[in-house]
Amino acid sequence: MTPIALPEDNLRIANALADAAARHSLRLFRTPLDVISKADASPVTEADRAAEAAMRDILGAQRPQDGIFGEEHGRERLDAANIWVLDPIDGTRSFITGSPLWGTLIALLQGGRVELGMIDMPVLGERWVGQAGHGARRNGQAVRASRCSAVADARIVTTSPDIFGAADWQAFDRLSRRCAMRRFGGDCYGYAQLAGGTIDLVVEAGLQPYDYLGPAGLIEAAGGIVTDWQGEPLGLASDGRVLAAATRELHRHALALLAA
Amino acid sequence: MTPIALPEDNLRIANALADAAARHSLRLFRTPLDVISKADASPVTEADRAAEAAMRDILGAQRPQDGIFGEEHGRERLDAANIWVLDPIDGTRSFITGSPLWGTLIALLQGGRVELGMIDMPVLGERWVGQAGHGARRNGQAVRASRCSAVADARIVTTSPDIFGAADWQAFDRLSRRCAMRRFGGDCYGYAQLAGGTIDLVVEAGLQPYDYLGPAGLIEAAGGIVTDWQGEPLGLASDGRVLAAATRELHRHALALLAA
Repeated sequence: MTPIALPEDNLRIANALADAAARHSLRLFRTPLDVISKADASPVTEADRAAEAAMRDILGAQRPQDGIFGEEHGRERLDAANIWVLDPIDGTRSFITGSPLWGTLIALLQGGRVELGMIDMPVLGERWVGQAGHGARRNGQAVRASRCSAVADARIVTTSPDIFGAADWQAFDRLSRRCAMRRFGGDCYGYAQLAGGTIDLVVEAGLQPYDYLGPAGLIEAAGGIVTDWQGEPLGLASDGRVLAAATRELHRHALALLAA
Repeated sequence: MTPIALPEDNLRIANALADAAARHSLRLFRTPLDVISKADASPVTEADRAAEAAMRDILGAQRPQDGIFGEEHGRERLDAANIWVLDPIDGTRSFITGSPLWGTLIALLQGGRVELGMIDMPVLGERWVGQAGHGARRNGQAVRASRCSAVADARIVTTSPDIFGAADWQAFDRLSRRCAMRRFGGDCYGYAQLAGGTIDLVVEAGLQPYDYLGPAGLIEAAGGIVTDWQGEPLGLASDGRVLAAATRELHRHALALLAA
């Protein structure tokens, strides 16, 4: 049986992955890049590909037995005890339009559960990381989700109305209009804000495992709760609908409004 | 007759204003703040008020004869040859939710025309400034708007669907759906992106002079064009609808689609 890695060693690896990704992404930020449209119509550039390749090189050298689920270069050993889920540049549209709100997302899955979740924001110089049972930190400083328990007090964010189908938009709209404030934009940064206590709800749809597992690990280590729109835990096979909330009570109310 | 100030001296003053505002806003960013709802339902905090007061202190000492049109502390001497239009924190909702995409906006009006426009982004460490006839710069480096002339190639951004009334949303939606990419969020940062050539169109409504005059001065110095939705130049009495475009041709096409 493959041994489960120690939390400190996982954090060391995750930091090395994020450092390597940032070297490539920052080098190419705000430079002229060819933008290729993928099969799902999402854009990709040389920066995404080079950053993920650099992360995979590190895993190949230091964790050859671990599995990898990456946005750009596919899947390997998904039956391994440790699976690294990698999004080299979450917010490629932000990246190619010169906005600083793009990040590298890293999750380490152990037995289907997120042991470590990281959102690294290279332009901002903010590294957010959470580990199950060890809390969450931004650049080494402890952070935690807010205590918000009522929808009427909540600040909600989503990336864009365009990520929802018509029925999902209706559900999001119903929930978000009851919130104290609703905001658009930010890609992965909304999840970091939730972990830091300045946003209370993030609701999205159409996401992939590499979009939500890193944020989910971070937020749960910060005391929040992240599920799909049925309240089920997120995994590699979820349907891409994400509900992240600062507290269990807020999560319950939001879930009811999404389903209403 | 009051003498018109020299461009270099105007830039020196604008830099001093932005430095002073940033000292107050950064000190209070991500700290617990009371959020007060103004008459127009927009939020304000101690940070907005302290930052604008610091700017007005500088103008009082160094340009006592100039006029001031500020978001938080009102209007003085609007018949002066020089009028400073100040928004200490554009994107107060971003500020209070811990997002870095808020900025200080400064415009210097001379004879109804924007002589200097500045977007200062304290968290990002980016100061964008344009002066009529002297080009635009980000942290001292020359920037210019893109050459994009076709709506189908354009990248468009707006802060939120919630800034539009129903008819204006329909107009925005009609235009933006024909663009290569549409993005939400960012408050004033979208205008900086346009000045830097990574966004081609910004379309908004419900804005105030202190929201659009600084960005307009920056973008026009960067080679772009900024008007209301009738194609008229912006001033203190515009109706709050803003169309900013990288080129005159793109502006003409966008104007036609907004009116269609």
